[in-house]
Amino acid sequence: MTLLVVGSVALDSIFTPFGETADALGGSAVYFSVAGSLLHPVQVVGVVGRDYPVRELELLAGRGIDWSGVEQADGESFRWKGKYSYDLQSRETLETRLGVFAQFQPKIPEAFRSAQYVFLGNIDPELQLGVLTQVQRPRLVVCDTMNYWIQGKRSALLDLLARVDVLMVNDSEARELSGDWNIHRAGRWILARGPQRVVIKQGEYGALLIEPSRTFYVPAYPLETVFDPTGAGDAFAGGFMAYLARTGSLSEDNIRRAMVYGAAMGSYAVEQFGIRGFDSIGLADVDRRVRAFQDLTHVSLAEALP
Amino acid sequence: MTLLVVGSVALDSIFTPFGETADALGGSAVYFSVAGSLLHPVQVVGVVGRDYPVRELELLAGRGIDWSGVEQADGESFRWKGKYSYDLQSRETLETRLGVFAQFQPKIPEAFRSAQYVFLGNIDPELQLGVLTQVQRPRLVVCDTMNYWIQGKRSALLDLLARVDVLMVNDSEARELSGDWNIHRAGRWILARGPQRVVIKQGEYGALLIEPSRTFYVPAYPLETVFDPTGAGDAFAGGFMAYLARTGSLSEDNIRRAMVYGAAMGSYAVEQFGIRGFDSIGLADVDRRVRAFQDLTHVSLAEALP
Repeated sequence: MTLLVVGSVALDSIFTPFGETADALGGSAVYFSVAGSLLHPVQVVGVVGRDYPVRELELLAGRGIDWSGVEQADGESFRWKGKYSYDLQSRETLETRLGVFAQFQPKIPEAFRSAQYVFLGNIDPELQLGVLTQVQRPRLVVCDTMNYWIQGKRSALLDLLARVDVLMVNDSEARELSGDWNIHRAGRWILARGPQRVVIKQGEYGALLIEPSRTFYVPAYPLETVFDPTGAGDAFAGGFMAYLARTGSLSEDNIRRAMVYGAAMGSYAVEQFGIRGFDSIGLADVDRRVRAFQDLTHVSLAEALP
Repeated sequence: MTLLVVGSVALDSIFTPFGETADALGGSAVYFSVAGSLLHPVQVVGVVGRDYPVRELELLAGRGIDWSGVEQADGESFRWKGKYSYDLQSRETLETRLGVFAQFQPKIPEAFRSAQYVFLGNIDPELQLGVLTQVQRPRLVVCDTMNYWIQGKRSALLDLLARVDVLMVNDSEARELSGDWNIHRAGRWILARGPQRVVIKQGEYGALLIEPSRTFYVPAYPLETVFDPTGAGDAFAGGFMAYLARTGSLSEDNIRRAMVYGAAMGSYAVEQFGIRGFDSIGLADVDRRVRAFQDLTHVSLAEALP
């Protein structure tokens, strides 16, 4: 059960009320793989510039991340600089320098083409479609997107929707894509375009799994300390996909469990700056946090009405 | 197990993208009792003006609502006029006319003073304290408040907190009261001021029950049709308290069940204008909706990690 992610490998400079980082490892593929590799090996396809601290990536390879699909191209690495509000509820992009990412054309190495679980991180939907022509017979394709593509590449995005199993977006993206402010109707709208499932991330509240005839809700793990929301969504995706790859089942029950693993990974992502929340986490920690979710929503309603 | 609510009995004029109402029955005590009376009789204390359509209240008495504690005073009834945004996410108060509510001094009738479950709706915390001097030995006192009192009557509100069992507020109120944007830390702050439990309502997302050593989350019922969010919080309180009064247990498990009944009642409130969402609801409907919550968060995590 091989797991492949295609996405950005970036350098983030982040300002929060609690501190700042400069040129720290970031990007969707990095958050995805750092979180996912706690559960299952991850193959990464991306691009970095000549200035990227590839040695830092290599240190992470020991965790089961295969960076051999990340090419190093002439030019600068993708850099993002952002600042969060005092309550971490909103953020402002101070600077985006695409660098070599502007010319990114994902080439899936021969060894990765048989990947069974494929996550298409938030890149141009035309490139996401291009990835699908290169992989052979994935069991599960999950994709992310963002407002920029919803507005600028709507047609390609709709083509993509018809070819993926799960769309995983945040609530504002689901609303913008569907043109419907009601999140459940927005989910139905997306289901009607192809995916069998929609995962809608709602930040500090949790995440919804919308299926044709059932809806599942996993709350966010209750955290009294949140340092940096960057990457939470990609870490969620990493936990979700890696759990499915690890267990090899796409049953409804297992997909619900994968949602909880996603929520657990999202919670580690926000507890520290950048990817540091995963520095000292092992499988036993993940297991403990996942079990804590059980109590968070547990209610016995049998014979509730006396 | 008698259940008493003290709060506003108002006339609401509401504009939403889907229509409008003028001078419709509203106010915290009305929403609370219409929702709660589906599960348990409710005693109401409040005030209305000479212009109030008391006959409409009397029609609701058949459901088990005892309005005998609502006095009719010389003057105009409390009127609120509000307009919701296109997505129902925010609202603007167009007009507030307190009328007789400005001089409201709750007098608990002799017959209501032994009430065991007491809900102090959102009124001046000095008046809420005054109610507590009139009731004998309630088993459970739950109170609501709002930003207006948090800013203007902070000292009385802190006195009140030391004397109630549960504070039930929305997330912005919890943040403003505690001065902490992190909702879990805000909950701890409130617990340290007296209440054994804090319920934090989060609108379309759901509600949190924060206890000293456990947290419970009930998501909002997934609704594809939402007409009017007015009164959802008071209907939640009505369902929560009436379920507890009906079942007579304050065990942790039962309080979690009460949260689900609260969430179910909140969902009926928003499905129609004003209190109309309760027009044709019976106990069997409530039971069905409550059971649907079970599936909404159900996940089996036993042996999740293979």
